[in-house]
Amino acid sequence: MKRLVMAAAMAAGLAGTAMAQQPPVSLQSWGSFHVGGREVVISGQPVREVLFSPGGVPARVDPNGTYLMGSMYAQYMIPANPRGQAPILMWHGGGLTGVTYETTPDGREGWQHYFLRRGWPVYVSDAVERGRAGWSMIPEQTGGSHLLLTVDNPFERFRIGNGAGSFARGEVLPGNQFPADRESYMNFMRQIVPRFTTTDALTLEAYLALLDRVGPSVVVAHSQAGLFGWRAAQERPDKVRALVLVEPAAVGDAAKVAALRNIPVLMIYGDYIAQDSRWPTIRGNGVRFAEAVRAAGGSVDVVDLPERGIRGNSHMVMMDRNGDQVAGIIQEWLASKGLYQ
Amino acid sequence: MKRLVMAAAMAAGLAGTAMAQQPPVSLQSWGSFHVGGREVVISGQPVREVLFSPGGVPARVDPNGTYLMGSMYAQYMIPANPRGQAPILMWHGGGLTGVTYETTPDGREGWQHYFLRRGWPVYVSDAVERGRAGWSMIPEQTGGSHLLLTVDNPFERFRIGNGAGSFARGEVLPGNQFPADRESYMNFMRQIVPRFTTTDALTLEAYLALLDRVGPSVVVAHSQAGLFGWRAAQERPDKVRALVLVEPAAVGDAAKVAALRNIPVLMIYGDYIAQDSRWPTIRGNGVRFAEAVRAAGGSVDVVDLPERGIRGNSHMVMMDRNGDQVAGIIQEWLASKGLYQ
Repeated sequence: MKRLVMAAAMAAGLAGTAMAQQPPVSLQSWGSFHVGGREVVISGQPVREVLFSPGGVPARVDPNGTYLMGSMYAQYMIPANPRGQAPILMWHGGGLTGVTYETTPDGREGWQHYFLRRGWPVYVSDAVERGRAGWSMIPEQTGGSHLLLTVDNPFERFRIGNGAGSFARGEVLPGNQFPADRESYMNFMRQIVPRFTTTDALTLEAYLALLDRVGPSVVVAHSQAGLFGWRAAQERPDKVRALVLVEPAAVGDAAKVAALRNIPVLMIYGDYIAQDSRWPTIRGNGVRFAEAVRAAGGSVDVVDLPERGIRGNSHMVMMDRNGDQVAGIIQEWLASKGLYQ
Repeated sequence: MKRLVMAAAMAAGLAGTAMAQQPPVSLQSWGSFHVGGREVVISGQPVREVLFSPGGVPARVDPNGTYLMGSMYAQYMIPANPRGQAPILMWHGGGLTGVTYETTPDGREGWQHYFLRRGWPVYVSDAVERGRAGWSMIPEQTGGSHLLLTVDNPFERFRIGNGAGSFARGEVLPGNQFPADRESYMNFMRQIVPRFTTTDALTLEAYLALLDRVGPSVVVAHSQAGLFGWRAAQERPDKVRALVLVEPAAVGDAAKVAALRNIPVLMIYGDYIAQDSRWPTIRGNGVRFAEAVRAAGGSVDVVDLPERGIRGNSHMVMMDRNGDQVAGIIQEWLASKGLYQ
């Protein structure tokens, strides 16, 4: 049987040696659910005949009626011997799904594994519009159109490549920790899904439904989800035990900073920011918002990874080769807040 | 800590008692990957300025360049003590994702759990166009438009409700095993994703890439995936150890039935078919194709569940309250083919 396991592991793209180093994990339970969403009623549209499968039988599809839109998906894994004092919810960035935390583009274990292996119940979700959440009635009800990314766009925008044209030149930033060999990078592109920019309100609603369902949690939010992490904590301060923002792309509601005063916040930024065209402003906004939260009595720790001697991090910190080192900073910080025993 | 586990379990929508009955499962490994897809080059389009997050910094997005389309997603869970002699790949139906096998709409464990708990390595995937596979360049390159379903459509088409208008009347088929209370049914609707009917070729290609990566496997395919199960087995007969078709909506290539002669096939059909407007024809096509495979030297077992005394199954057999009983038939059949020890 050992041969079968190894064969399956290697088929899954994991080197046999890397696999062998990791002990098995015992799960008390695992599964998934959808939450949130609203009903929309459509009328006055013509009926269609649809042949769903070749050689099948056409079905009459009446587009008039009630639709469900705006729900989201979460997959949970609960360890048999938990040590985390609250579940960790992992919220991905824009144009991405929960896969962000499940694997790295070169097939290493993701942050889902890191925290589950240390005894945290982990919920990895797909926000409204992407992944297993689906995008029913988007953009019909939200407006906008879907945005697709060419292979060079994230390479150059996520601080992997060295500026404009770097994908074509195959030139990564010096010392970059993202697995940027062509095969790995193309695996990352496979993880990217179409994005709308008109669904923020729906997405926040669904995240609130998720918090209401799971209860008090640690929220780890990346990039676009920085917006939803801040805002959800402001709307449900009793449901967020701690907020970890990894390269947040946006800030919360300036009028509600006081709602955050009892929630410990950790913000983490990677490398190469000073030389980027957009990230100095984005980080500047984040740091200023952190100051406003502190002025309202809150506690925000801002970690600049290069200042800690951790260099080479792209925007996709959790996928970088030193991603576990950064996860270790989060783990230590959560423990320092009394959330781990 | 026990309290925390139960709280997390209950937040996940599982009754405490149902949870307590299930022992923990030990995983040797778990994770995900994407496979397949092709590159597409676009030119001549205008550059856009996109504000990805409110308060962020607009980014220049050049839509010209190379895109990756048509890859798919798979998530694997490998038990620490495997007994299955090949991995089981679970392929979902149209307008759905791998969630089909992960949970039931009323929060019970899915077939993923059933087979993993018995020691099978299980791969649950999202096919091209849906879920975590994404739909980059669909429909731009495939044509077609996305089809959405009103809440009454699957209720009436999937043999849950009693014919046209049954959703409005709240009338399920007598003895129906689908969890059709409103809350559960709406959870099922949340699982449904937009569907294109122009992506069959891309989808088959990606499934072949999946088989090539994982190696010889048992394929369990539902509904629309009946097409892909048959066709993939015909294209990669050496990679399919057994084929289990649950209410297949389509048949394989009639010119290639001989390719199936060494692959044991099990076909399973639920209840209420005779009185349905479309399913007698769909099942008739399937049974005739099975006969052609047998005539070419193949082995196909067709199970009509009501004939076995198992009644009340909708099209979504794996979600029905007696879904585990049907899984038991598959388990027994796989063991009879020497695939379980």
